[in-house]
Amino acid sequence: MTSFTPAETAAMHRAVVIAASPDAPAGPNPRVGCVILSPDGHVLAEGYHRGAGTAHAEVDALANLAAAGISAYGTTAVVTLEPCNHQGRTGPCAQALLDAGVADVVYAQDDPTAQARGGAAALAAAGVRVRRGLCAEQAARLNRPWLLAVTTGRPMVTWKLAATLDGRVAAADTTSRWITPPAARHDAHRLRRDCDAIMVGTGTVLADDPALTIRDEAGRSAPARLQPLRVVVGSRPIPPTAQVLADANHLLLPDHDPHAVLAALASREIRHVLLEGGPTLAAAFLRAGVVDEVVAYVAPALLGAGPAAVADFGVSTIADALRLHHPHVVVLGEGDNLAIRLTGDPDPGGTNRTTASITPIHHHAEENH
Amino acid sequence: MTSFTPAETAAMHRAVVIAASPDAPAGPNPRVGCVILSPDGHVLAEGYHRGAGTAHAEVDALANLAAAGISAYGTTAVVTLEPCNHQGRTGPCAQALLDAGVADVVYAQDDPTAQARGGAAALAAAGVRVRRGLCAEQAARLNRPWLLAVTTGRPMVTWKLAATLDGRVAAADTTSRWITPPAARHDAHRLRRDCDAIMVGTGTVLADDPALTIRDEAGRSAPARLQPLRVVVGSRPIPPTAQVLADANHLLLPDHDPHAVLAALASREIRHVLLEGGPTLAAAFLRAGVVDEVVAYVAPALLGAGPAAVADFGVSTIADALRLHHPHVVVLGEGDNLAIRLTGDPDPGGTNRTTASITPIHHHAEENH
Repeated sequence: MTSFTPAETAAMHRAVVIAASPDAPAGPNPRVGCVILSPDGHVLAEGYHRGAGTAHAEVDALANLAAAGISAYGTTAVVTLEPCNHQGRTGPCAQALLDAGVADVVYAQDDPTAQARGGAAALAAAGVRVRRGLCAEQAARLNRPWLLAVTTGRPMVTWKLAATLDGRVAAADTTSRWITPPAARHDAHRLRRDCDAIMVGTGTVLADDPALTIRDEAGRSAPARLQPLRVVVGSRPIPPTAQVLADANHLLLPDHDPHAVLAALASREIRHVLLEGGPTLAAAFLRAGVVDEVVAYVAPALLGAGPAAVADFGVSTIADALRLHHPHVVVLGEGDNLAIRLTGDPDPGGTNRTTASITPIHHHAEENH
Repeated sequence: MTSFTPAETAAMHRAVVIAASPDAPAGPNPRVGCVILSPDGHVLAEGYHRGAGTAHAEVDALANLAAAGISAYGTTAVVTLEPCNHQGRTGPCAQALLDAGVADVVYAQDDPTAQARGGAAALAAAGVRVRRGLCAEQAARLNRPWLLAVTTGRPMVTWKLAATLDGRVAAADTTSRWITPPAARHDAHRLRRDCDAIMVGTGTVLADDPALTIRDEAGRSAPARLQPLRVVVGSRPIPPTAQVLADANHLLLPDHDPHAVLAALASREIRHVLLEGGPTLAAAFLRAGVVDEVVAYVAPALLGAGPAAVADFGVSTIADALRLHHPHVVVLGEGDNLAIRLTGDPDPGGTNRTTASITPIHHHAEENH
């Protein structure tokens, strides 16, 4: 059984934290952190990947080490993902570690992509001591959308809904601002930050004219480079004045077949899409079995009439109800401004168990990672 | 400003606890606890009311004191409700305290009923030191249904619902067993124990044939004397084999007007009724503004079709949504068997703000308290 020192475990915890730094945005590449330890277990340097086109975590850490005037000879590199083995703009990370004289590599999870895998074997063949599996679960959680996307060939889909206790997402006259209190709306904006794309149906654009942008609590927009792609699905015409069309960072997809929609997003290297409504589009994705996560905001309020959170998606009897696994409940806000956030994962496959046949996304080594 | 000693405060906390003893069942009378202290603040005896026809808390405590061979002369009685002043089977409690020689009376809240109030004034007139208001909020919480019933003249109404995240209380084929996991169903049975009556519409009887009885986790029925009155509202015929008709402890009310229903229950001294469905009956009570508390069990599941938790009750736009005040969230169960319980109080008045003109219930001194 592989064993790790307390210093290596502490270093991996730190590597996971820095991998999720605020300037490591969602995007086509995985989040990766790296910490370099001296032979006696002291932290010498750290680094992380800042997104497509920038240095990998290992190279970033080695550069920081060199900048401090310290040799990497005989050190241990602790990294959240298997070092890549592909020849890109800067050469593979495995080679960079070898060239620097790193003696020991500890990593959390294997790289599942066809182009990047093999770094561990290359290092071991060159005489480096290589160990894997430390904090593998935390590392997987860090990159759930990326792992799902590179192994299934489609983006991870998170469906977000905001409903009353009786499951309404709007009143009878279609007004829906605001069903949930401010704390829930701010939380939903944080959710948008974790996604590469936000998707709604044309019905939602016609009813609500949402901006689908990331804004802070004061209503100020985040910088353009952090704004997710705005995706509108469906064939109903939307007015040219619609807010989703405000700049070029949008995509109109008339074909509302979920598999076709996801293939179009995959071809743009979208790894994580947030489905924000409406009920018909959500039902289509649930029916197709391509909703990976549900984030429901429930307000302590009742409407008695108005559209339900989701349209018929093929369940006719209680035994077939779509149950969410690993449910997690958080109470947001307080007093009369309280709301519940319930997160969970639907059964894979949905009510229509046909499997999509989409070619897995390949790692775009040259341009991105 | 009235002041209380630490010993009196501790005694009142204890009095509140014993007032809610398991054998102090829901019923027409308030829950009351009493602790008797020596002049130097030691607990000498305690007592509580065990329901209609049994000794009042003060008399129970004095009897326990006498049984221990201790004189009540010069003691302090700490009691959760103003001692009654009415001549019943055993004479008023105020007189019993005077006769025993109690020198000091501390109570939490005034008795609001026309027949019983005045005990504090009678004690003070006789030279007893009387102080009120210690732990008044806790004492009021102990008797919320009773206080609401004696001041409004109708039973308190708690509406219980069990729904999916999309607000469905049954699937498209009307099956609903079980929407919520075991932990939520057990909790709902505890809720029944706190009520004098359980009410459903005829539609629910026809769809589900519920027993509406209190059962333990193994499915065994509680003793008959602890079973609430089963109330069926509506004019649709129900079969003679329906489980709600299993014994005489039921009431059929063809008139589904909420005010008429509540007047019929008030005349039977029902202080707290649990409205368990269905959506039409719940809507009628919400529209009439006579739902005092909502207890919602929400399962992490989706149905997409089937009846909603509540039918149209007159809200047409989001600004008029019925918001629950003092919302309180509890997570029941764990893992995939988790459910949320959300409790809150609707705005008084509902969507139909006409006030019921029902004569307040009088305290039935002779028979009950």
